[in-house]
Amino acid sequence: MRSMTAGKLTVVGLGPGGYGQQTPDVTRALESADVLYGYAPYLARVPERVGQRRQASDNREELARAEAALLDAAAGLHAVIVSGGDPGVYGMAAAVCEALERGPAQWRELDVEVLPGVTAMLAVAARVGAPLGHDFCAISLSDNLKPWDVIEARLRAVATAGFVIALYNPISRHRPWQLSRALTLLAEHLDAARTPVILGRAVTRPTESIQVTTLANVDCNAADMSTCIIIGSAHTRLIERSGSAPLIYTPRSLTSPSSATR
Amino acid sequence: MRSMTAGKLTVVGLGPGGYGQQTPDVTRALESADVLYGYAPYLARVPERVGQRRQASDNREELARAEAALLDAAAGLHAVIVSGGDPGVYGMAAAVCEALERGPAQWRELDVEVLPGVTAMLAVAARVGAPLGHDFCAISLSDNLKPWDVIEARLRAVATAGFVIALYNPISRHRPWQLSRALTLLAEHLDAARTPVILGRAVTRPTESIQVTTLANVDCNAADMSTCIIIGSAHTRLIERSGSAPLIYTPRSLTSPSSATR
Repeated sequence: MRSMTAGKLTVVGLGPGGYGQQTPDVTRALESADVLYGYAPYLARVPERVGQRRQASDNREELARAEAALLDAAAGLHAVIVSGGDPGVYGMAAAVCEALERGPAQWRELDVEVLPGVTAMLAVAARVGAPLGHDFCAISLSDNLKPWDVIEARLRAVATAGFVIALYNPISRHRPWQLSRALTLLAEHLDAARTPVILGRAVTRPTESIQVTTLANVDCNAADMSTCIIIGSAHTRLIERSGSAPLIYTPRSLTSPSSATR
Repeated sequence: MRSMTAGKLTVVGLGPGGYGQQTPDVTRALESADVLYGYAPYLARVPERVGQRRQASDNREELARAEAALLDAAAGLHAVIVSGGDPGVYGMAAAVCEALERGPAQWRELDVEVLPGVTAMLAVAARVGAPLGHDFCAISLSDNLKPWDVIEARLRAVATAGFVIALYNPISRHRPWQLSRALTLLAEHLDAARTPVILGRAVTRPTESIQVTTLANVDCNAADMSTCIIIGSAHTRLIERSGSAPLIYTPRSLTSPSSATR
């Protein structure tokens, strides 16, 4: 047990899953933790160490998890909360801030650190080329914590303005229709037959899958909570290759590659 | 010298700068390279290795750099192009795709791999809490390759729709007025006195600087090409702490923290 003043809470992002894309800073924090908190499937990716306590919990219990970890830190422990991808992108960092703001005043004295990671859209994008090569946005399709009409307004705004769109939390058992409705809405603003769509899941893990299709042909059943979906803009291009998967990229310039000048 | 069939081009992201946030996959690719390409300041971060050739170039020569690396890969070498942050976010991955699409047909047979990294907005966000905790977007303020009116339309669209905004390439010697104009425009749509703004530079490097201010009080002279600026939404919150810097976060829920129910 450490002294009271040594207490610390570190929120880490494991990246997409494979250790090859987990940063050394995160690995070091995991090694020095007294107690680890996290959604069970993420925690399962962290090697067990003698003397470390583990508190796995369900993915709807973010705030309770954050509070428990803050209590441990206040008691002098080094508590580490693990998120998949980056903890600041639909991950545990915001939940920790929220718990800290609501909690006792002395929690504001705690040493709280966030260590970033490779978030899903970056890992998925890298697998197919550079679809996020120009202005882009991230939108969660979960309407558990925001009204659906806000999500629709946001989709409309960014599709019209020419952003590439990364959808997080696209579908779940409790949210079966939202993805299909979002894609229908996007098809009103984009050329559905020509807009590339990438469905990426479990990148760098043994179960990795990457599907490249068009907005007109997305199979919503191919997506789940772990899927990140990237929807191209009107400028996103697909390069066919014989013998390997196509490359997809959004050019740095808004003029076409053939006419772009240096 | 490797055989013709072993040629490969890997585009890697070094992350924000410190080795603690560079992924092991990237480190391995850098170690196995025959030749390294990159903008000189990024290349300078990679330890020198005997037998490796290096081609540093200016940051306006992305396409020529990509072509040279593709030529090396076509000649059987393992060429590695380094980007800061993530190579798919305003980095070299899109330039490689563009060069490949314009180039000779046989380049499409090459083994091209992109390895992601921690992009600037994630590294900056982690330093202050979780400002990207809800829907957000990335916009480059460089009008070298897209018209300024497109940038203004995009800023307007996302500010109105409630996104947190990360600005890349905010200012340079050749683009002195764009940042100020962008902030003025954003102030028409956001409460400038209350909207938190974070200016982050060189995170994890010895010259790291993080400034927290409000949209009304941004000093454009404090930014340069290496600065990533995060502009909060109407929901972004600031938690004052005595003895340490404030935490800034955008709640997962659109209702206020105090009224949010689990």
